Amino acid sequence: MTTTTIGVDIGGTKIAAALVGAGGELRGPVLRAPTPAAEGPVAVLHAAADLARRAAAAGRDDRGEAPVACGVGTAGAVDADGRITHATGSLPGWRGTDVRTALEAALGLPVTVHNDVHAMAVAEARRGAAATARDALVVAAGTGIGGAVITSGALVRGRHGLAGSIGHLPATVRTGRPCGCGGTDHVESYAAGPAIAALYAQRAGLAAVPALEEVAAADRPEASEAIALAARVLGAGLAAAATLLDPDVVVLGGGVLGLGEPFVAAVAEAMRAAAALPGPAGVPLRVAAFGPAAVLTGAALLAT
Amino acid sequence: MTTTTIGVDIGGTKIAAALVGAGGELRGPVLRAPTPAAEGPVAVLHAAADLARRAAAAGRDDRGEAPVACGVGTAGAVDADGRITHATGSLPGWRGTDVRTALEAALGLPVTVHNDVHAMAVAEARRGAAATARDALVVAAGTGIGGAVITSGALVRGRHGLAGSIGHLPATVRTGRPCGCGGTDHVESYAAGPAIAALYAQRAGLAAVPALEEVAAADRPEASEAIALAARVLGAGLAAAATLLDPDVVVLGGGVLGLGEPFVAAVAEAMRAAAALPGPAGVPLRVAAFGPAAVLTGAALLAT
Repeated sequence: MTTTTIGVDIGGTKIAAALVGAGGELRGPVLRAPTPAAEGPVAVLHAAADLARRAAAAGRDDRGEAPVACGVGTAGAVDADGRITHATGSLPGWRGTDVRTALEAALGLPVTVHNDVHAMAVAEARRGAAATARDALVVAAGTGIGGAVITSGALVRGRHGLAGSIGHLPATVRTGRPCGCGGTDHVESYAAGPAIAALYAQRAGLAAVPALEEVAAADRPEASEAIALAARVLGAGLAAAATLLDPDVVVLGGGVLGLGEPFVAAVAEAMRAAAALPGPAGVPLRVAAFGPAAVLTGAALLAT
Repeated sequence: MTTTTIGVDIGGTKIAAALVGAGGELRGPVLRAPTPAAEGPVAVLHAAADLARRAAAAGRDDRGEAPVACGVGTAGAVDADGRITHATGSLPGWRGTDVRTALEAALGLPVTVHNDVHAMAVAEARRGAAATARDALVVAAGTGIGGAVITSGALVRGRHGLAGSIGHLPATVRTGRPCGCGGTDHVESYAAGPAIAALYAQRAGLAAVPALEEVAAADRPEASEAIALAARVLGAGLAAAATLLDPDVVVLGGGVLGLGEPFVAAVAEAMRAAAALPGPAGVPLRVAAFGPAAVLTGAALLAT
């Protein structure tokens, strides 16, 4: 097949876009631009449309035909009509934005819109670490913790576009730490990158919260403790999800992978220890196969 | 359509069977027999086959044609080949039993085998309280607590046949109560019928654990407390599942419905209070529409 689709990834700090083939392969360079988040939704949509057009022009299919559709993965929860139902502070005013209609008007193409972790999960399910799985749980742990549920190879979107919200399961630790959603003591409160860094800073008495890379590099017991706690809480959350879904595989991606293989091993061990039933306790934990192009690739695959 | 299927429900204390039409309607009487659990798997299979034959003879389709298949719902976890991978103490030796092959040989019909709560959920999803839902969570809380996940109208079986095991999610209360699976402080440890009765007996200083009906009827604060705790733990477990799945509806069935409408309302309130995100917090909790024929009806629907 020579059909191509434009994949777009709208994040809180940057937008990425590329032309993607029907099999999920890149058909051109991945273009990036900063997200003008502070300028509001219209500026963000304008920047996304501009980047999408440039990505289409920079790539090509075998016959030089134009892309047939555009798939968008974006931060926030998205309803079936492509409207944002739920957003975090990284994109002010994003909630309520009708992304699909705006981009269809701007591009003159059919547009589909999904949550970014949902899109990433589709890339992993069709061409990545969950490609041989029937049912999978895909988790992206970075600035926040998002997730996606795949059953019979298909994405479960959920009534409000919120399926897979593993970051907001209750943490097994209750010390009153806040969550990005406004709640307290969720998995994200301990295992998201900023949460790990904040806990380290607090325990080590640092004046400022460092970047996650500095926590990983710090040769101090407070850093190891914060990372171990994150692994334990995330592993227990994954175990609860595995108990409920009995998936073939759990895939972990996102910025916390920067903590390295020992972190992944600690999460896997905590998952095994916390899973209630023998089957789910043995579910393999795999590292995401896709890198930075995961979201735009999955979004493009969802558009066709 | 006039096609009929035999539906069979193999429980720890009784077996039920009936002829079922393609739309899930009963085509004859529901026959019942005690489960010869103590005599072992062969005796149970023999009794199930005998009841299935009698149910087929007692029912009829429009043209007097014989049933084309048999669907079985049974206690325990079932793999895709119809073999028991996991069983509780109510059916000694049941684990490892190849139910499909044995009943195909006995009946001369294609046989499919599912977990009983999975089968019940399919009845609710196609013809019951979740009939208008795309995604649903169905829970049966009785002697144990089982569950089933429905996505895009279809049952999620899970790799080991264990999907939906909400009874084995960690309870929000940690007082060291045992669970039927061998674990500690699971949802089932507090919200299953025997767990509620045991907690009441312990708090009230009773010598023997009463039946759940006696707890419901007892005019003592210890009874109300045990029931309220069960509602709180079950509601929190449903909230965690709803956070992860963002379903259209949660359906509650099983013996705990004998505690009455105030119990269901308390579970719904606890679910709303514990759900982390606004969408899942608003998911409706509905009471199961099917009665005792739910499992055999769903099993029959799964067989065609």
